[in-house]
Amino acid sequence: MSRKASLSGFHEWLPAERIVEQHVLDTLRNTFELHGFSSIETRAVETLGQLLRKGEIDKEVYAVSRLQADTEQGAGKTQQPQDAQDPNRLALHFDLTVPFARYVVENAGHLSFPFRRYQIQKVWRGERPQEGRAREFTQADIDVVGDGTLSFRSDVDVALVMAEALGALPIGGFTIRINNRKLAEGFYRGLGLEDTAGVLRNIDKLEKIGADEVSRLLQSELGATQDQAAQALALAAIRTEDTSFVEQVRALGVTHELLEEGLEELAGVVGELHRRAPGRAVADLSIARGLDYYTGTVYETVLVGHEQLGSICSGGRYDALASKGNRTFPGVGLSIGVTRLMMRIFSQEMARASRSVPTAVYIALTHDDDWSAAQDTAQSLRGRGIPAEVAVSAEKFGKQIKYADKRGIPFVWFTQTGDDGATVHEVKDIRSGEQVQVDPATWMPPESDLRPQVLPN
Amino acid sequence: MSRKASLSGFHEWLPAERIVEQHVLDTLRNTFELHGFSSIETRAVETLGQLLRKGEIDKEVYAVSRLQADTEQGAGKTQQPQDAQDPNRLALHFDLTVPFARYVVENAGHLSFPFRRYQIQKVWRGERPQEGRAREFTQADIDVVGDGTLSFRSDVDVALVMAEALGALPIGGFTIRINNRKLAEGFYRGLGLEDTAGVLRNIDKLEKIGADEVSRLLQSELGATQDQAAQALALAAIRTEDTSFVEQVRALGVTHELLEEGLEELAGVVGELHRRAPGRAVADLSIARGLDYYTGTVYETVLVGHEQLGSICSGGRYDALASKGNRTFPGVGLSIGVTRLMMRIFSQEMARASRSVPTAVYIALTHDDDWSAAQDTAQSLRGRGIPAEVAVSAEKFGKQIKYADKRGIPFVWFTQTGDDGATVHEVKDIRSGEQVQVDPATWMPPESDLRPQVLPN
Repeated sequence: MSRKASLSGFHEWLPAERIVEQHVLDTLRNTFELHGFSSIETRAVETLGQLLRKGEIDKEVYAVSRLQADTEQGAGKTQQPQDAQDPNRLALHFDLTVPFARYVVENAGHLSFPFRRYQIQKVWRGERPQEGRAREFTQADIDVVGDGTLSFRSDVDVALVMAEALGALPIGGFTIRINNRKLAEGFYRGLGLEDTAGVLRNIDKLEKIGADEVSRLLQSELGATQDQAAQALALAAIRTEDTSFVEQVRALGVTHELLEEGLEELAGVVGELHRRAPGRAVADLSIARGLDYYTGTVYETVLVGHEQLGSICSGGRYDALASKGNRTFPGVGLSIGVTRLMMRIFSQEMARASRSVPTAVYIALTHDDDWSAAQDTAQSLRGRGIPAEVAVSAEKFGKQIKYADKRGIPFVWFTQTGDDGATVHEVKDIRSGEQVQVDPATWMPPESDLRPQVLPN
Repeated sequence: MSRKASLSGFHEWLPAERIVEQHVLDTLRNTFELHGFSSIETRAVETLGQLLRKGEIDKEVYAVSRLQADTEQGAGKTQQPQDAQDPNRLALHFDLTVPFARYVVENAGHLSFPFRRYQIQKVWRGERPQEGRAREFTQADIDVVGDGTLSFRSDVDVALVMAEALGALPIGGFTIRINNRKLAEGFYRGLGLEDTAGVLRNIDKLEKIGADEVSRLLQSELGATQDQAAQALALAAIRTEDTSFVEQVRALGVTHELLEEGLEELAGVVGELHRRAPGRAVADLSIARGLDYYTGTVYETVLVGHEQLGSICSGGRYDALASKGNRTFPGVGLSIGVTRLMMRIFSQEMARASRSVPTAVYIALTHDDDWSAAQDTAQSLRGRGIPAEVAVSAEKFGKQIKYADKRGIPFVWFTQTGDDGATVHEVKDIRSGEQVQVDPATWMPPESDLRPQVLPN
């Protein structure tokens, strides 16, 4: 992380960092699969029409065009100006939700619903160069999508899966902050504020501009009374680890059918999380998740002690992730910003790899022509799952040991001809310096030395 | 594979196909790591200047530009015409070799040489739409790169690793065809043909146009005598599984220092492969590998019975993969075209997944409010590495069993209250119909049912 990206916004890891990233991705994959989520990948490109369907972030898209198509139109000429916003133009996806929605519609006849999928891929955002933001990053998403209907229990399920997945990573403490759109909207309606999107938009500014300013905006922009504004802010101030938020909301004296539905759903999610993953989640009634297309539960996740980093895992319920004719596909899901997480892991030195290469055993050569026999030894080790490399020439042992040491390879293997002419195999642990005679057909390193370990600092 | 890609050239797999692809990628990764190769990933984009440095395939590049940069220049306008070939313009990488070379130069101070790396990523080629070729595909590369020098033994090593990796895949038989540029060039020089690139270019057409036509071209284009042309063709006709090609070449009576060097190197690679992976490799003196930047060993790989598919794993030795000032980095490597391989696996039905989801156990609900208790059972199973899903509602058992059956989930779990009030757990194998009482704290499915298996057909 001391290195600067050679292309602003495009981070590349060194081999030892990549081992930590692989550990993170393997852990996520394993957790998702243990919960029955299927892997899919979608193509990197979508049509502009598909990407901009949701409106919002057209400013941050990377368009893609065949260089040849450019030059085919005349020496060095790019596409015609009128093509720039052509809905058939290709662009790199900026998240995994829009591509997944398209995939579901296209393959609906081949999928079984409810469909549980995870998707770990890179996404790209054409951020302005001067802002120093990541332009390429890895996301890890889980979603459950139904055909027509989707049980609310999936809202509980995906949060439990993510609590478990994040809990298995070397990232310290985290808090999943959960709210429910129905709860907020029902509360505002019960209060008599009908522009619920407007209220949410202002509540979303709470952390940035403070309660007084939000109250002023609610009154000046939306025509709320001082009391209505105070009530909306009182709701946003509620935050509990268990389901006691329900009583706190009821104490505010507002009633509405949608509010009841929201309270019941949020209590369902938070209650189950509190029981099963205590300390991992809170009901936080200030969470608005911008103006996204969520229709029920919404989630955000912050790292304890690194709250200013923003959310590292967000999502929610959408009643119509996708639709095809009069068929709709409701869904609920969460997305981890893996690259953002990795940058934090490295900058805060939260974890490191025990070595920079997979190799556990480096087989030294006594004579140059021992190479093929050394490969036999290596192959026997690999057959038992022990990563092994063979030296390419019989340099001085000191130099061969240095090769291993520099990479953090724990064991160096030596072969010598004994007094009786038989081959003697010895293994040196280069951390302790201990060297012992071994049988190449049976020797095993300690389990913890087999593969690089990712150690929390 | 019966489905048509919704965007020509961009293939997306269904969940069961993705399981086969994951199996292939996991197998490759495991083999590469057992041989001590480190994983790296590079960014998806390079500058046009970097990509076109090697010259050849500028016609097939996908350029990338911020949509916002387009529109910033005026309503709907694209970049100015003079920018189309701007060397600072970004484009998607079309292979993993060029990005790796840049990565090595940029990070040379942080890497240990010789550096063994594998890289499994998507690449993109802006093929003309009408040609029906893949435009997005996954490659799996291994390379060993040295600082200044690189032992010839790495040429043997990478071929052994790939023979082992391909041998572990469900793709049937394959043949790695190996040649050596020094051997061919030395032979042509020894013959008196100095335009060795010209000869190679014509020899490369052998399969397409036949020996007579190549002979004619060698004479008309390069001024070869009939005898020289016959000798060049005689060399290209040599193909042996062991090192007997050496004698066959010598029998042609041509001598040259470079030829001797090439013979020794090729015998080194083929001899070791013949010994260690018999039947996997041949010395094939017709292999030219186009006009690539290789300087010694060259490799191509065909599937036995699918030779017309072309090479599925190619590469070679390059004396200067990259350079930085007066420092050069020689390398040798091979690249598997994973997507091409997957398309063949599916179209020929070479392998399939035993089920379409990771789930091994589907936990049915007897009553709707058993859900949380069922999650306890599921969590106990997952703790032992058994992927488990819980039903979302207490539908009829027949319907719950159908849910599992449709996805190929082998086991359905039932919980009932016994006569004495205690909970009774039973597991039904829905393939045999057998249902037995089990202890949720200890029950294990057969090892082969834990995760989806990839079965050869």
